[in-house]
Amino acid sequence: MAIADGRPGRLTPRGLATRERILEAAADLIYAHGVHATNNELVRKAAGVSGSQLSHYFPDKESLVRAVISWRADSMMGLRDSPPRGPLDSFEALRAWADSYVQNAKVLEGGCSFGSLASEIMKTDLDVHDEIAAGFDRWREVFRSGLQAMRDRHDLRRGADPDRLASVLMAAFQGGMLLTQAARDVTPLREALYEAIAHVESYARRRTPA
Amino acid sequence: MAIADGRPGRLTPRGLATRERILEAAADLIYAHGVHATNNELVRKAAGVSGSQLSHYFPDKESLVRAVISWRADSMMGLRDSPPRGPLDSFEALRAWADSYVQNAKVLEGGCSFGSLASEIMKTDLDVHDEIAAGFDRWREVFRSGLQAMRDRHDLRRGADPDRLASVLMAAFQGGMLLTQAARDVTPLREALYEAIAHVESYARRRTPA
Repeated sequence: MAIADGRPGRLTPRGLATRERILEAAADLIYAHGVHATNNELVRKAAGVSGSQLSHYFPDKESLVRAVISWRADSMMGLRDSPPRGPLDSFEALRAWADSYVQNAKVLEGGCSFGSLASEIMKTDLDVHDEIAAGFDRWREVFRSGLQAMRDRHDLRRGADPDRLASVLMAAFQGGMLLTQAARDVTPLREALYEAIAHVESYARRRTPA
Repeated sequence: MAIADGRPGRLTPRGLATRERILEAAADLIYAHGVHATNNELVRKAAGVSGSQLSHYFPDKESLVRAVISWRADSMMGLRDSPPRGPLDSFEALRAWADSYVQNAKVLEGGCSFGSLASEIMKTDLDVHDEIAAGFDRWREVFRSGLQAMRDRHDLRRGADPDRLASVLMAAFQGGMLLTQAARDVTPLREALYEAIAHVESYARRRTPA
């Protein structure tokens, strides 16, 4: 079961590395061409594994797509960056997060790697909606907990609602990525993200003048 | 040519009605199942037309998808509402625009009818990227011209940038629709849209106290 459902389970280090290689290849193919155009043959070739190896780790397309969703959610949260991205619990950290996308030419190509996957998959018959919702929930928690920390530390006024402001930042990012991908121009993403952060900053505690 | 490229051209009223029926059927199928799962057979059946009628108006899938993109862009701009949505040139109009989605249970199902189509199509080999960019550009102009009118009329301060605030509203909508579709809960859309409008309102001209 641990293997059959595509989870790392009790794999050897070598097994884990093979599984990771398959996931990375599948995630790249899906990002570039969509879930529909990605088949076993392409994944197998890109990952350099045999058909039996592929089906050993991922017995069907749904198990592979499910694992790619989780893998992409980790990327969205910066867990695959090296070093992994720290908490988003200051205005500085939020601005650095925005800059890391605004200054990255790759955003013009495929949109958000998780959001564009989610958008496509939710139209298909694949039974992976719960995984997508869980991915967004985990991502939301990164923003929510960061904003909560800022409020606890009185960087944000008590009227600031961490849940609500998390929605603002997440939507600005997802919508901005889509608009930027369509326009092949980073401007809409930059404007949406910087204005969203300015909105969060409007909740900054007013300092008493010295 | 006028017919072969799927444009209304010099069609008779009856021809126009048939073309519209095909477009509506195709748009519905694509919204529910995606471009990839939508084929001639399904469109033909849903629209109640013969194969030769379908190919008369839309000789290939690309011409059909191209027409659906334009059709969906019109919907996004409220041109298919009855009566058609007026200009978004006041805080009241912007709030009514947001409410019309927040209070519509359909948003939980398929996300933005144009944005989700754009997101899927940009991964395919279909040569329709320019139509998608043009759709977003036309939509942007609705916001930009409304915000410009508000600034001209001094509802907004001179520091308000209509282009930039158009990006804020568009991204909040597109991102909010995606998050709401994934969560099957209207909350993220409501929070993103209302906070985006609050952000625009922060540029309202300060009234001199009476």
